[in-house]
Amino acid sequence: MKKIEGGIASPKKYLVGSTAAGIKKKKRDMTVLISEVPSTVAGAFTTNVVKAAPVTWDQRIVGMHRPVRALVVNSGNANACTGTQGEQDVETMAAHVASKVGVAKDEVLVCSTGVIGVPLPMDKVVAGIETCTAHMGHSVEAAMEAAQAILTTDTFVKSLAVEIEIDGIPVRIGGMAKGSGMIHPDMATMLSFITTDAEIDSTFLQQLLGETVKDSYNMISVDGDTSTNDTVLAFANGAAKAPAIEAGTEAARVFSEAFTFVHTELAKMIVLDGEGAGKFIEMKVTGAPSKEDARLMARSAMSSNLVKTAFFGADANWGRILCAMGYSKATFDPGAVTITYASEKGMITVMEKGVPIAFNEDLAKRILQEKIIYVSAVVGSNDGDATAWGCDLSYEYVRINGDYRS
Amino acid sequence: MKKIEGGIASPKKYLVGSTAAGIKKKKRDMTVLISEVPSTVAGAFTTNVVKAAPVTWDQRIVGMHRPVRALVVNSGNANACTGTQGEQDVETMAAHVASKVGVAKDEVLVCSTGVIGVPLPMDKVVAGIETCTAHMGHSVEAAMEAAQAILTTDTFVKSLAVEIEIDGIPVRIGGMAKGSGMIHPDMATMLSFITTDAEIDSTFLQQLLGETVKDSYNMISVDGDTSTNDTVLAFANGAAKAPAIEAGTEAARVFSEAFTFVHTELAKMIVLDGEGAGKFIEMKVTGAPSKEDARLMARSAMSSNLVKTAFFGADANWGRILCAMGYSKATFDPGAVTITYASEKGMITVMEKGVPIAFNEDLAKRILQEKIIYVSAVVGSNDGDATAWGCDLSYEYVRINGDYRS
Repeated sequence: MKKIEGGIASPKKYLVGSTAAGIKKKKRDMTVLISEVPSTVAGAFTTNVVKAAPVTWDQRIVGMHRPVRALVVNSGNANACTGTQGEQDVETMAAHVASKVGVAKDEVLVCSTGVIGVPLPMDKVVAGIETCTAHMGHSVEAAMEAAQAILTTDTFVKSLAVEIEIDGIPVRIGGMAKGSGMIHPDMATMLSFITTDAEIDSTFLQQLLGETVKDSYNMISVDGDTSTNDTVLAFANGAAKAPAIEAGTEAARVFSEAFTFVHTELAKMIVLDGEGAGKFIEMKVTGAPSKEDARLMARSAMSSNLVKTAFFGADANWGRILCAMGYSKATFDPGAVTITYASEKGMITVMEKGVPIAFNEDLAKRILQEKIIYVSAVVGSNDGDATAWGCDLSYEYVRINGDYRS
Repeated sequence: MKKIEGGIASPKKYLVGSTAAGIKKKKRDMTVLISEVPSTVAGAFTTNVVKAAPVTWDQRIVGMHRPVRALVVNSGNANACTGTQGEQDVETMAAHVASKVGVAKDEVLVCSTGVIGVPLPMDKVVAGIETCTAHMGHSVEAAMEAAQAILTTDTFVKSLAVEIEIDGIPVRIGGMAKGSGMIHPDMATMLSFITTDAEIDSTFLQQLLGETVKDSYNMISVDGDTSTNDTVLAFANGAAKAPAIEAGTEAARVFSEAFTFVHTELAKMIVLDGEGAGKFIEMKVTGAPSKEDARLMARSAMSSNLVKTAFFGADANWGRILCAMGYSKATFDPGAVTITYASEKGMITVMEKGVPIAFNEDLAKRILQEKIIYVSAVVGSNDGDATAWGCDLSYEYVRINGDYRS
């Protein structure tokens, strides 16, 4: 597996176009992605009962397991809590893209992110679709512009691509995402889009995505809120002309590893860009009775406000980490837990097999004052391992999210 | 039901004594409560897998359903993550109180709150028990001093008592608590102790407590962390000489109402005293398919960081409330939801039957700048109602919890 340039447009036969349609004041706010050949699609969606109109549209299309051809995304307005008008607007967006691409509207997926409870400015949106579809390309710049167009208050573009070989034939996976949590005064939404020119049927692609989401997006915590618009979509158009990837094969293992890598890197970029977040924390739980137990413990610790504020204060407060693992609903023996902090400044163990150990507070402080911090919790000698990523909880988080909307 | 003075010592035949044993630098940090006659006891404990030594001790005693006689509490040290030494220290505390009172050690309950991972200074603790038990009383002052002795960084004493009549005979319920969350750099713990001179068998008392906890302590959110030491204990010694309270009777209804009132008032005081919390928010969900659905929605909204920061910013950001209700796992139709904010400054509806409505932003701001704010979410026309209490998330929260332990 090697990293390559070009993000979402790097796999074969994908084109993107984007524009500043005026939904936001100035910045790019719309993008259209087209696969020049029919593509399978898989999706993961918010579990929130309150779903934005585009989420419902996309769930229906993904559920049909039929080939699709395009995706349209706008930022600046989430089209959430907008009633039947919102549903009509999604359909209009899909239909308009479809007419430009020459496909059916059920072959077009739609995503929105931004303020909620406000109807989309459809004149701007329709004009935006015209502009996007009139300027489609697959250059590195086009992919970067698309990755910009889906952002809200993110501070950097989240985009990457990798290349693997399937039976000696190069296959690519590209992706772009926007951040979740700590980033928007109105609503925190995570969007992530992956393209590949591998050939995979939609059922297997959906299975791979389901597994991957558990270890990537579901293992990051910025502020624990699950938005009305969270969406992950993966497209596979087979344009690389490599053999189809089937479950249980070596090709599936290679593809799955790269696919998971792209999702996980995007998820980590989202945490890194949590506004107000000054630190990036990676927590690894190993030796748990099961992978799910390890996931629960790691995610619980990375989601705790008390843990987050301790990292903000560079405080080696391992008690809060153990406590958050304790209420995670995971099964483990607290008497077996060893907790270690590490960063560029060194490594320090603060609890060993359930017993707090005297440690050098100065060294701990130096370790925790770094921007990137690693926490290891060995909880036993079983096989359940998992990693979660989180950030600190800062004054800046309160400022950004406490600011009045206007 | 009328409010009376005297807190935990107001029901008959309860004595309290407290002292500054030196576990904290200066303040009172130990108290002993004695029932002069055998008392039934019920308890609710932290669900955290990581349990402090006294929690394990108390769970065993409560589980025996046998009469008890005393409680000893220290603040300043949680006796958590202290291994077998911690277990021995709990037993020593119980045995020492028992020898002073002339009972068995299994008739003595033990609670601790404070820093974790540090062994108790047992010489100070034992001397403290001597002082407490040498100065037992049932005055209003004695009860206030006891309520002070269990605090950590709480800013005010949480104590109250009420009197009801059972068959024309006065029966009293007293209580004291210490706060949870936002209050301690090392560990947030909630302790609550209730005394009554009603006669109730331990099984029914346990049942009443279980129901009450769901609508009181489980409906407050300060920062969502569940500590290693959370404990609620209720004692009933029958000293009022009123008829025993049996399930399903009018007496049980009257007692249960008062019992719930005391617990709920203590829970609300805990939220009011969340350090760094500038606002107190009461959220009522009505019309849900079930009480449990209503509880889930109300608690989810009051626990959301995004909702909390919006209240800090006096922002009528109803989308965050609806969103948090949406991921609460409760069943409801977002299209039926009506959300209203109220305070001393007025009342404003921001969403009606699922449709956002234009509202006066200036009035909304004035309403939300108040210290006490009410939120109503009508989610349908069913019978499921619940109320949750929360606070805002402020710079002060980050400062307090980000401060280094020392």
